[in-house]
Amino acid sequence: MQRILAIDAGGTSTRAVIVEPDGHGCGFGRAGSGNPISAGTSAALDSFSAATDMALGPRRSARETFSTILIAMAGKSAQLPLTQIAGRLEALGVRGHVHVESDLLAMFCSGTWRTQGYSLLAGTGSVAARVAGGRLDLVAGGTGWLLGDVGSGFWIGHRVARAVVAELDGIGPQTALTDLLLAALQLRQTPERDEGRPMVLFGLIEALYAMRPVELSRFAPLAFRATGDQVAGQILTSAAAALVDMLAAVKDPDVDGPLVLGGSVLNDGMLAEGSPLSVPLTRDLAAAELHSVRDGVVGAAVLALRSTGVDVDRTIFTRIAQDVAVLR
Amino acid sequence: MQRILAIDAGGTSTRAVIVEPDGHGCGFGRAGSGNPISAGTSAALDSFSAATDMALGPRRSARETFSTILIAMAGKSAQLPLTQIAGRLEALGVRGHVHVESDLLAMFCSGTWRTQGYSLLAGTGSVAARVAGGRLDLVAGGTGWLLGDVGSGFWIGHRVARAVVAELDGIGPQTALTDLLLAALQLRQTPERDEGRPMVLFGLIEALYAMRPVELSRFAPLAFRATGDQVAGQILTSAAAALVDMLAAVKDPDVDGPLVLGGSVLNDGMLAEGSPLSVPLTRDLAAAELHSVRDGVVGAAVLALRSTGVDVDRTIFTRIAQDVAVLR
Repeated sequence: MQRILAIDAGGTSTRAVIVEPDGHGCGFGRAGSGNPISAGTSAALDSFSAATDMALGPRRSARETFSTILIAMAGKSAQLPLTQIAGRLEALGVRGHVHVESDLLAMFCSGTWRTQGYSLLAGTGSVAARVAGGRLDLVAGGTGWLLGDVGSGFWIGHRVARAVVAELDGIGPQTALTDLLLAALQLRQTPERDEGRPMVLFGLIEALYAMRPVELSRFAPLAFRATGDQVAGQILTSAAAALVDMLAAVKDPDVDGPLVLGGSVLNDGMLAEGSPLSVPLTRDLAAAELHSVRDGVVGAAVLALRSTGVDVDRTIFTRIAQDVAVLR
Repeated sequence: MQRILAIDAGGTSTRAVIVEPDGHGCGFGRAGSGNPISAGTSAALDSFSAATDMALGPRRSARETFSTILIAMAGKSAQLPLTQIAGRLEALGVRGHVHVESDLLAMFCSGTWRTQGYSLLAGTGSVAARVAGGRLDLVAGGTGWLLGDVGSGFWIGHRVARAVVAELDGIGPQTALTDLLLAALQLRQTPERDEGRPMVLFGLIEALYAMRPVELSRFAPLAFRATGDQVAGQILTSAAAALVDMLAAVKDPDVDGPLVLGGSVLNDGMLAEGSPLSVPLTRDLAAAELHSVRDGVVGAAVLALRSTGVDVDRTIFTRIAQDVAVLR
């Protein structure tokens, strides 16, 4: 029986897993960014190849034909050079039909074997999806830092930066975020002023504009750290409300199923132990069954097996998930 | 008696004016962007030179020494190559001590001969200032599209774009802005969908991310055009409120004086004849005396004359303003 190769290509890292038709995981590999848009096609191809090479391990056959090779990635409409990918993998002795799936669907399938339900992700960006019949049925959000992604890491980090600039500019309330952000950027507040403004504001503005806008997401954790601060609390409360609204936009009373949560803003922030948002947010998400996932690699394997005709039930799903947890 | 040369260097265009000590304007010139940060130092120097050349006119002396050469520009702290500027002007036969002033102060001085009062600008960006003793006393806003500039053209255009994306994404209310924005970008709505989203959303996102973020300010006029639309109305009402708050942040009950308004969002939008915001905004600005200005060129001449010891009173100010209006 032929095995499948599943690659979960993310903006930060790429994961590859080799799985048998019964769900047993045989190899796991990891490499750098696999997003051809943000990292470039060449770097993405390198990552696919490096993660696969690691997953094949030292005891590989010289040649292996997989029943399918599935790549889960954002913007699957983007023209991926599938023949180039196949060529790179063939250099490793790997053959098989290469196809691409949505990373959002893979994320959902990482949390549940069911083919119907919802998924809500909030990492650097944010997106919600309804899944029905094993396919994406409706998607909301995920329109990027400039145009949408409410409640995301960028959205929170951007508001943190704006709140600090507003305080120093005299048009916003005092907030504990100011000391946290200035410390993170190694800036120091002084009493000096120029052109009717505090000097530190010039340094802060310069430091923030030197970053790519989307990098402001690195300041999202400051909002979680500033416990008890009213400004930070308001940012997080409205971020949570925006995520609940985003999920509501894809909900259908006739489509029931588990809710799969992904991304650090949800899993390591709002729903982390001790977070004051955890209880009200869990209530507002109103899910009968809730699963948190780290990435889409398990789901990529699930989708790969299903594409070869395997009926991935609870038993096979659990086997994949457990083996990947051990292998990674 | 020596004349002064004043250059008002803006991001879109540069204006130069030559004025006699009694306020009589003798020449006016115009050229392209004079902002060394956005346009580059070399292009800015070209603009200073071209505008000055045009202001000198055909009947110029071969050589002229000005009592002062003043350049009004944003971010006066930015290191301007003053010796290079002097060198370029000398090639035109122009000599004199070159110095730089804030464009914000020049804008205020374009609207009044008084040395105390307030100024509020809303063009692509937004900023408010308190002026006392002829100097900037306190400034709020002007921190750029990413970090501040509430109520500005970018702020409005950005919200227009986000509102349209939200409607097409199914997470925002219906708005007349959608047809206006799609038409402006020559995009057409179709019933086709992909990956759980309307196809037109992909085209819209691609078109908007292809622009520099700050260029979203070009969509601000759509909010003014969508009369009667609730979403557009809310964007403009909150923009006006943000501008009123920005002005409030620099107000001092002990500092009285005229309010000078600049920028297309205020002069051609909110306060234009027929705008529903005009009456309530004028009331909320709570100014005893209100002046609208187009740019800072008159004020640059006022500041230049003052720096040479001329007492610019109402008579001299009015003469400069009237002559510039005729010359431009």
